[in-house]
Amino acid sequence: MRCEVIAIGTELLLGIIVDSNSAWLGEQLALAGIDSYYQVKVGDNFARIEACIRQGLERSDAVICCGGLGPTQDDITRDVIARVMGVDMRRDQAIADKIRHIFESRGRVMSANNLLQANIPIGAQPIAQMPGTAPGLVCPVGGKVIYAVPGVPSEMREMFLGTILPDLQRRAGQASVIRSRVLRTWGMSESGLAEVLAKRFDELDKLGNPTIAFQASGIDGIKVRVVAKCDDEATATRILNAEEELIRGLLGDVIFGIDDQSMETVVLELLRRRGLTVAAAETITGGILSARMSAADTTMETFRGARIAPETGTAGGLKPEQRAAGAASQARSEFATRVGLAAVAPGADEGYGPGCVFLAADIDGSQHAEKVLLTPDRRRMREFSVISLLNLLRRNLS
Amino acid sequence: MRCEVIAIGTELLLGIIVDSNSAWLGEQLALAGIDSYYQVKVGDNFARIEACIRQGLERSDAVICCGGLGPTQDDITRDVIARVMGVDMRRDQAIADKIRHIFESRGRVMSANNLLQANIPIGAQPIAQMPGTAPGLVCPVGGKVIYAVPGVPSEMREMFLGTILPDLQRRAGQASVIRSRVLRTWGMSESGLAEVLAKRFDELDKLGNPTIAFQASGIDGIKVRVVAKCDDEATATRILNAEEELIRGLLGDVIFGIDDQSMETVVLELLRRRGLTVAAAETITGGILSARMSAADTTMETFRGARIAPETGTAGGLKPEQRAAGAASQARSEFATRVGLAAVAPGADEGYGPGCVFLAADIDGSQHAEKVLLTPDRRRMREFSVISLLNLLRRNLS
Repeated sequence: MRCEVIAIGTELLLGIIVDSNSAWLGEQLALAGIDSYYQVKVGDNFARIEACIRQGLERSDAVICCGGLGPTQDDITRDVIARVMGVDMRRDQAIADKIRHIFESRGRVMSANNLLQANIPIGAQPIAQMPGTAPGLVCPVGGKVIYAVPGVPSEMREMFLGTILPDLQRRAGQASVIRSRVLRTWGMSESGLAEVLAKRFDELDKLGNPTIAFQASGIDGIKVRVVAKCDDEATATRILNAEEELIRGLLGDVIFGIDDQSMETVVLELLRRRGLTVAAAETITGGILSARMSAADTTMETFRGARIAPETGTAGGLKPEQRAAGAASQARSEFATRVGLAAVAPGADEGYGPGCVFLAADIDGSQHAEKVLLTPDRRRMREFSVISLLNLLRRNLS
Repeated sequence: MRCEVIAIGTELLLGIIVDSNSAWLGEQLALAGIDSYYQVKVGDNFARIEACIRQGLERSDAVICCGGLGPTQDDITRDVIARVMGVDMRRDQAIADKIRHIFESRGRVMSANNLLQANIPIGAQPIAQMPGTAPGLVCPVGGKVIYAVPGVPSEMREMFLGTILPDLQRRAGQASVIRSRVLRTWGMSESGLAEVLAKRFDELDKLGNPTIAFQASGIDGIKVRVVAKCDDEATATRILNAEEELIRGLLGDVIFGIDDQSMETVVLELLRRRGLTVAAAETITGGILSARMSAADTTMETFRGARIAPETGTAGGLKPEQRAAGAASQARSEFATRVGLAAVAPGADEGYGPGCVFLAADIDGSQHAEKVLLTPDRRRMREFSVISLLNLLRRNLS
């Protein structure tokens, strides 16, 4: 089963918008075992869109068209698809009513051109999911199929997961359920993970299901993705649960969370469960830790704040690990919290070499410390220090 | 003149990397008046890359291949191009020496496969710019041309600007110099800008050179891009300078900078020139201002720090503008700076409606204040508050 993605919109070619939809679709298709050999961007031009769709149908079994479904005169995807299908358009009354209802419920006046979105090629089926005013379409052409979805990422994703992916899987005669779980890790290299999991990899190679893959993701750590293909949801869940338990047994607390959990959401949840509050002293991290924590804890009931200031020199003869511990304690008392955090980068004259950062977490007066060696690039040092510091706290809260 | 972009790499199709190179190239080509009607992503597969390049040469005058020039067995772009050109490869000794030298100068051992990068199709010219170990290529095919550049964005950009763009312009018989300047604005809507510039737009429509276009860029404001096409560099500079002066006369201090200047770099420069230092009290902005300022002022000699904490309630009966002013003064005294900044979002019970934020800048004890109405989405409110606050300071420093 091959599926091609065509992203439609002149603004994509002009670089005004970066096409991230194709990358997301490519990842989803790969996860589902569907090949995607070509992804194309084309402008709002009838003949060129038509040529791309026709070529897509020649060399693939399915084509997903993203964008060009809105109400303006640039939005011609529907018309091009009708031409390729060799059919006329019909007004879909149910869709027209939905569009009117969306405007009414938002208290907005609907201009007439919005109803153009209710015109669909004869023989095409509107996609049930319709979070916006532009319906998606499933358009059979011979034994193949063209899907059309809006370019708005959230709408595109809802329609893909709700209708297109199941339809593709049905056409491919695939196992009816494909589910994945991402185990999020921090603190071990990809080769280190591969070594620990080597035996399990061999076993799964023979079993064939589930499969495991790594994905290095910068400050989001290395993701271990487990994919299970099964006949039903319950079996998929059972397999994913069993595999997660097995991998957790091998990797231990290198795993900080699953799926969309971030380091800060995990740390905040651990703090909340224990009724703890936290504050920070930010020097090298310059506000990045606070920005992340306050984005995840919007009321700032758990993350109580931070003081951001440059280190005031290495006077007093204190070593960097002592200064980090002192700053973490100071953050606790300044913000009246039970936990304090700090990261200190030693001065160039302290003899630690570039990329060295000292981390400190003070939990109720108990000091936890770690020295990390990071890529000596300032931007990366700042970001990796934040995650490493949160990870130090996490490991001492679990 | 038509130029097609082909991004090569299976990791692009799988969504492991988002292809931002094509968007950048599309923008550059559009600026230069070169049409780019198709952009294609294809995996590391000989036959499929070949098909894409051949199709590109059919429907366009030039093809830029991005990626697949490294030393591993996945990197086959060079070989595919040789096949399309119908030629063998030759070892380029100068390139081989350069590659050896790059490894030596970094004190690293070179594995033999790196010299594969010195193999180039007979008839192709290596691109003079070579910041990494993979050379770019200019490969004539009949009257058309294939360019090959590495997928590393910085290397790709240097080669495009240094060699490919001038070569494309020469082939197109274009004016030898195309230069652009971006005037960065904050605080006026796109329709507001269009109204103020309407007369000038009409004049330029008749003149044809330079041209002006808007580009809405979220928290980077709205960019006004001026493009001049001329016979020589001096004329281009003169036209851009004159147009910038004219637009500045119309828009005034809505323009905060040019080209790659960000709001924070502009504000930091104004502060430095006056010998001022700044600190902030961050409540709703939660560290975002500090993270941006400390990234731009790495030594924190001008941005001296911030205190991040939730507002401690509206007790005392102070109005939000008074609380913002108080917090800005407090930041000055706490960090011993001459300038203090604060943004306060009133409580839901204070009757200001959602999206309302009070900004305060205290310069040597003089209070400057502004009330802004932002989209009441928390993430956007935080980010837009930061830029609006820095803009308030900028306007009172100029």
